[in-house]
Amino acid sequence: MMLRVALAWQKKRVGRMRMPSTAARAVHSLKDENCPILISPSLVSLDLPDIWNPNSHEFPSAHKCSNKQNAAIIDGKSMAEEIMSRIAFEVKRMKESIGKVPGLAVIMVGQRRDSQTYVRNKIKACEEAGIKSMMTELPDDCKEDEVLNALSRFNEDPSVHGILVQLPLPQHLDEAKILDVLSLEKDVDGFHPLNMGNLALRGREPLFIPCTPKGCIELLIRSGVEIMGKRAVVIGRSNIVGLPTSLLLQRHHATVSIIHAFTKNPEQITCEADIVITAAGVPNLVRGNWLKPGAIVIDVGTNPIEDPSCEHGYRLRGDVFYEEAVRVASLITPVPGGVGPMTIAMLLSNTLDSAKRAYDFT
Amino acid sequence: MMLRVALAWQKKRVGRMRMPSTAARAVHSLKDENCPILISPSLVSLDLPDIWNPNSHEFPSAHKCSNKQNAAIIDGKSMAEEIMSRIAFEVKRMKESIGKVPGLAVIMVGQRRDSQTYVRNKIKACEEAGIKSMMTELPDDCKEDEVLNALSRFNEDPSVHGILVQLPLPQHLDEAKILDVLSLEKDVDGFHPLNMGNLALRGREPLFIPCTPKGCIELLIRSGVEIMGKRAVVIGRSNIVGLPTSLLLQRHHATVSIIHAFTKNPEQITCEADIVITAAGVPNLVRGNWLKPGAIVIDVGTNPIEDPSCEHGYRLRGDVFYEEAVRVASLITPVPGGVGPMTIAMLLSNTLDSAKRAYDFT
Repeated sequence: MMLRVALAWQKKRVGRMRMPSTAARAVHSLKDENCPILISPSLVSLDLPDIWNPNSHEFPSAHKCSNKQNAAIIDGKSMAEEIMSRIAFEVKRMKESIGKVPGLAVIMVGQRRDSQTYVRNKIKACEEAGIKSMMTELPDDCKEDEVLNALSRFNEDPSVHGILVQLPLPQHLDEAKILDVLSLEKDVDGFHPLNMGNLALRGREPLFIPCTPKGCIELLIRSGVEIMGKRAVVIGRSNIVGLPTSLLLQRHHATVSIIHAFTKNPEQITCEADIVITAAGVPNLVRGNWLKPGAIVIDVGTNPIEDPSCEHGYRLRGDVFYEEAVRVASLITPVPGGVGPMTIAMLLSNTLDSAKRAYDFT
Repeated sequence: MMLRVALAWQKKRVGRMRMPSTAARAVHSLKDENCPILISPSLVSLDLPDIWNPNSHEFPSAHKCSNKQNAAIIDGKSMAEEIMSRIAFEVKRMKESIGKVPGLAVIMVGQRRDSQTYVRNKIKACEEAGIKSMMTELPDDCKEDEVLNALSRFNEDPSVHGILVQLPLPQHLDEAKILDVLSLEKDVDGFHPLNMGNLALRGREPLFIPCTPKGCIELLIRSGVEIMGKRAVVIGRSNIVGLPTSLLLQRHHATVSIIHAFTKNPEQITCEADIVITAAGVPNLVRGNWLKPGAIVIDVGTNPIEDPSCEHGYRLRGDVFYEEAVRVASLITPVPGGVGPMTIAMLLSNTLDSAKRAYDFT
């Protein structure tokens, strides 16, 4: 399987990076009196990037089975619109009651085209909802202090209730350090480790649930899907999507498995899932034969594929090989029009919640 | 299967608690104009206890297969002793260099017999390692402020580098509130949500890794087990063991599935695992036929089973049906003598690390 090849390639690459297996290194080092007391390495030293093997984009040879579409489409766009109009109503009510509106501040570093699109969509959504928005744009090569200063200003600004730092940041900036400075009460993306810990721990409530995972759950529940007791597979373990999605599903009592680039048999595991949420960032990764008949598929992938025939020269493709998946799944989100709009709706919802908390407004 | 019966019983019980399914309640409420904008409920409102169906303790009818033991025993006791002697050496070195030793403070509320045993073992281990220990004991019906005051005193005490609140606390005490007050720099159990978030997030390093999960990893690595790429199943999702263990395994690039009391087919999922770590607190839960031949089994369970023939009137039994498991597994931890001693060793290791950080001692 291609992923096994990719894994083997990755192991060789790791080998060339002179990183012997943790176990081998550990057992060997036990003999060295100067070695640390404990063998377990630091976690950050273990962190390796997830390098997926992208599937080819061409269509597979014709199937003998029918082309009948099985899956109902989860219309994320409509659900988001309904939520957005409710948010706009609440914002109006807040304005009329206390003369305040929620405020969302965005810090944008560099000029990545995808980031620009996301930010543009978020600002536009704020306008439509009556939420005040403001943005600080910094050049790609800006100094860390410039970002931290912008952040501090927004932290101090009482008209700002949510702050988001559009990720990814340029490599030279310390993302963790920057996100740590972001005021907890304004962490509408929910990326602060304290928030993540409160998401993970039963009995705890995070101040903010990260927008995309929150949107995925909202899509599922609004589609009438019962999460409790279901087998859920999350493909991808990014800090911003895969990880919090797996934690959130578990809080909803799904039985969760997390697949990543080091997983040897992702197709087999995914095939056991009632619910598949995929956020690997690899177009067409999830084939029809990865899916159990009747599976529910939430596709977080927004992968730009070059296509000169399209308006901007590219089209968006999910992680899922859509044409195959619709024949197998019972429910599926389209790309675009599924998760994307819901993520934005959740961002605005988090911002509204933050403002309500700030003004003790109910 | 007994677990299906238990699950059905639990669902009925939940039904009697008048808690309709999240999805049904949600879809119904969409029609109500006064309903919240978002359907997703608060996480704490979702939290349900994991009520496992305890397996019977009697031995199964005689197997036709041989009684040959397959599994090598992971001698946690010996590994812990080796670690403890290295810790003692470091403590001595610290004392001779800077005239300081690490200090561990324990807060014990009530008189649970198991808690008393655990605390006694921890204090004894401190003494053997040269770590100063101190304990505040409070009655079962103490007020929350008494616990918070004891905690604050230890927080302020510069000779204390680690504080542990022996769990579980009596029901009337707010555990989360108490653990939140514990100084982050002294959170040697690693239960603070900030610590848990830093454990979950790639690129982050927690100040302390919770002791039992840390011990499990140490046992695996010292046994020469390569975790990367392996399929790992964690049985149980407690905040103190199952959850952090699953996060830690994922940081080590295992493909993790978490099983809990709402899982419909735990045996089937466990059968796929290369590594099984079980912390459900149910004696004999994990049968031989739950395990893949050659599986590696780490048994965190320490379940007291009444036995008048034993010294204290009870004996300890793991979560694993040991006599069956040893015929199938390739490696297994005994109970006692496996995870328990390693947990204590990790506690002392965390305390030593904390002291080193406090004094900037290397």
